[in-house]
Amino acid sequence: MNESKNSVLKSPTEQTLDKSTTTSFDHVIINANIATFSAQYGFDIYADNQADSNPYGQLHHAAIGIKNSKIAWIGTQDQITAHLPKYQTSQITDADGKWLTPGLIDCHTHIVYGGNRSNEFEARLQGVSYQDIAAQGGGIVATVSATRAASIEALFAQSEKRLVALMKEGVTSIEIKSGYGLDLDTERKMLTVARQLGEKYDIHVSTTYLAAHALPPEYKSHEQDLADDYIDQVCEWLPILHAEGLVDAVDGFCENIAFSSDQIRRVFEVARSLDLPVKLHAEQLSDIGGSALVAEYKGLSSDHLEHLSETDIVKMAASDTVAVILPGAFYTLRDTKLPPIEALRKHQVPMAISTDCNPGTSPLTSLLLAMNMGCTLFYLTPEEVLAGSTVYAAKALGLSNKGKIEVGCDADLALWDIARPADLAYQMGLNPIQGIMVQGQWRDTI
Amino acid sequence: MNESKNSVLKSPTEQTLDKSTTTSFDHVIINANIATFSAQYGFDIYADNQADSNPYGQLHHAAIGIKNSKIAWIGTQDQITAHLPKYQTSQITDADGKWLTPGLIDCHTHIVYGGNRSNEFEARLQGVSYQDIAAQGGGIVATVSATRAASIEALFAQSEKRLVALMKEGVTSIEIKSGYGLDLDTERKMLTVARQLGEKYDIHVSTTYLAAHALPPEYKSHEQDLADDYIDQVCEWLPILHAEGLVDAVDGFCENIAFSSDQIRRVFEVARSLDLPVKLHAEQLSDIGGSALVAEYKGLSSDHLEHLSETDIVKMAASDTVAVILPGAFYTLRDTKLPPIEALRKHQVPMAISTDCNPGTSPLTSLLLAMNMGCTLFYLTPEEVLAGSTVYAAKALGLSNKGKIEVGCDADLALWDIARPADLAYQMGLNPIQGIMVQGQWRDTI
Ligand SMILES: [Zn+2]
Ligand SMILES: [Zn+2]
Repeated sequence: MNESKNSVLKSPTEQTLDKSTTTSFDHVIINANIATFSAQYGFDIYADNQADSNPYGQLHHAAIGIKNSKIAWIGTQDQITAHLPKYQTSQITDADGKWLTPGLIDCHTHIVYGGNRSNEFEARLQGVSYQDIAAQGGGIVATVSATRAASIEALFAQSEKRLVALMKEGVTSIEIKSGYGLDLDTERKMLTVARQLGEKYDIHVSTTYLAAHALPPEYKSHEQDLADDYIDQVCEWLPILHAEGLVDAVDGFCENIAFSSDQIRRVFEVARSLDLPVKLHAEQLSDIGGSALVAEYKGLSSDHLEHLSETDIVKMAASDTVAVILPGAFYTLRDTKLPPIEALRKHQVPMAISTDCNPGTSPLTSLLLAMNMGCTLFYLTPEEVLAGSTVYAAKALGLSNKGKIEVGCDADLALWDIARPADLAYQMGLNPIQGIMVQGQWRDTI
Repeated sequence: MNESKNSVLKSPTEQTLDKSTTTSFDHVIINANIATFSAQYGFDIYADNQADSNPYGQLHHAAIGIKNSKIAWIGTQDQITAHLPKYQTSQITDADGKWLTPGLIDCHTHIVYGGNRSNEFEARLQGVSYQDIAAQGGGIVATVSATRAASIEALFAQSEKRLVALMKEGVTSIEIKSGYGLDLDTERKMLTVARQLGEKYDIHVSTTYLAAHALPPEYKSHEQDLADDYIDQVCEWLPILHAEGLVDAVDGFCENIAFSSDQIRRVFEVARSLDLPVKLHAEQLSDIGGSALVAEYKGLSSDHLEHLSETDIVKMAASDTVAVILPGAFYTLRDTKLPPIEALRKHQVPMAISTDCNPGTSPLTSLLLAMNMGCTLFYLTPEEVLAGSTVYAAKALGLSNKGKIEVGCDADLALWDIARPADLAYQMGLNPIQGIMVQGQWRDTI
């Protein structure tokens, strides 16, 4: 595959460039360095010999033609130059040697919630125990109360700030979970806000039903465990919300402190009956078989994974399930148990990386910082975390036309003022974004 | 000191509010919650009984009068209301219940440098050893080469991006060190760029001469250690650059891999003869007596301090030297040795917190993120990290009129869209800045 490094010279559509195609592009981007993350350009993060791969699937001095909000052509600067007089200035973007990547994709977030938990953050650092905080109505219960109490407008306004922060860093697709309602009306309210956010902003939103996130306070009893009763409700609400067009995928929290794999299986059965893809919070604190269950249901992703076994990694590889790595939670919880990165590499399980933005364990609205944490805390390479925020994040959401720069894919792009792709993972707090294109249109403001 | 919680009701200038004073304010800020970090309002982070202190020195429903770029009056909303008709709308800012803090102060940075080191960051994660990177001209030598090679305009343009990123988060004062030149001309170039940055932007820049940062490549010899010869040069250059108005303070790197305390002492002697304050990179990797030396010279600050002994903490307390804590480097280096926070608290050594922004060990241009790291990695409280980015950071720079909101202080302020001060340390990647005032003027753009 060594020739892939020169693949820019033989892009698949080169032959058609002289024909009418070029004149009909809606937009061309010239003078770009491109991180395509496309196998067509030699991207192969699992190549046995890395010398055989073209890191980031990169192309230099390249150009892109866009038509009908899709990438219609990719080639060299030389190929496009002769055709440029055909275009109006407004149809040409001169990238001036800057780097173009796919628009970033944050594939695991809880950005829709009420209140915040900085008071608990502060109390813990002042020496108050988790137990005392919980006894005072803190923890996830506090977020559930605030989310239930918030009007839909208030919930939208609070969540919007987090979305905008992510979008400013080039995020053009995002997953948003429910799971702080834990009753039908509030789960609906959260998913509705997620849809509204996608409508207001030029961003693709994938919604995820996560009613199986925690046992709601009204199901907690000193006498008995009512978790199975609550799961009955979760299973009942899912078809209702799905019928309202609010659900793109189904998630749960499979953990000793949350739900068992048998309970999650019941929810997954309903998802299967509705043809909805599944994913799971699994093996964050212990190993109770979550990822094996996801693999059995051919799920999109299994997320967190600090305690994942190699046996279950093999199952994930077989079911083509993405491993979603969430270093923000690892960092905030001061965890020390690293996810099994080497084994995931060995079995070629694609790894995505995400903010896990949530008010308790990861109050993080920077996907670039999540990438840096992936490198610094988990020893992932810059290429891995960038692939994990583009092509593999798209895979984790079942989006086959996003996350890479390839003819036929959506023209969701980010332009960066950087010297090389690794800069995006190396810098902390510097946002080098220069332009964001969604469905073929540059955003007016960033 | 319990009454301090009500101190807003008896602000020192209350008596004068009905007189001509009020009508002559250049600007008033009303309806603000204020974190003053002023002892006058009960801020006392080292109170034996925390119940006796007013965290953050906070005032609610408060107002501020500004005159001649200084804070001229602080009082309650009720006190100012009757006087508001005297002001033009343009002279009034309604904070609408948002939080006002002193402008943030980043008291330890190396933001002026050429090139970047993301290639090394990537190579290390691909398994290349530090030794191999150094053998290939990497490490600090790479930054020295790039900084020497850069024109002053190019150096300014690169450094400006980092300054702007910090300023966007409310930083209104910054320290900038030399130390990547290691020859007279390039040290001068770096300090000149630092001064130019302060002139172009509304920001206070304190410059620090750090030629004793590393042994330059031309002084490295297999036959003998030429460090003393280099220190001769460092001592010779200092009066020259000081005479050019480029030096506000003097720093060094006291470490086995850099300079001994005897060598640093020679530099400090020259600083003393010029009446320049000193500070030091000390006890980051080992304890070779750096902080004791700083204390002997009554230095402004000793910085890093992971390996600081309690004996030397006592000396720092006696010399009123600030401990500057740099979690970004700790994080990036994956250090595990925590600085002695408890002992610093016990001896009431003021702690500042800073980005240490530099291309090798802390490519961090977010003081808010440094605060979060201070809490998460070092178990500092939100009040400590906020004090460390305001009042104690000012102290670390010898700026007695900045870093707190008090009558007579510079009107350098930041307005935040947050529910409580702890939000600033709790959130990662969300910039809730609403307004930045420098010397009594709101910035037009953030
Ligand atoms: Zn999650
Ligand atoms: Zn430093």
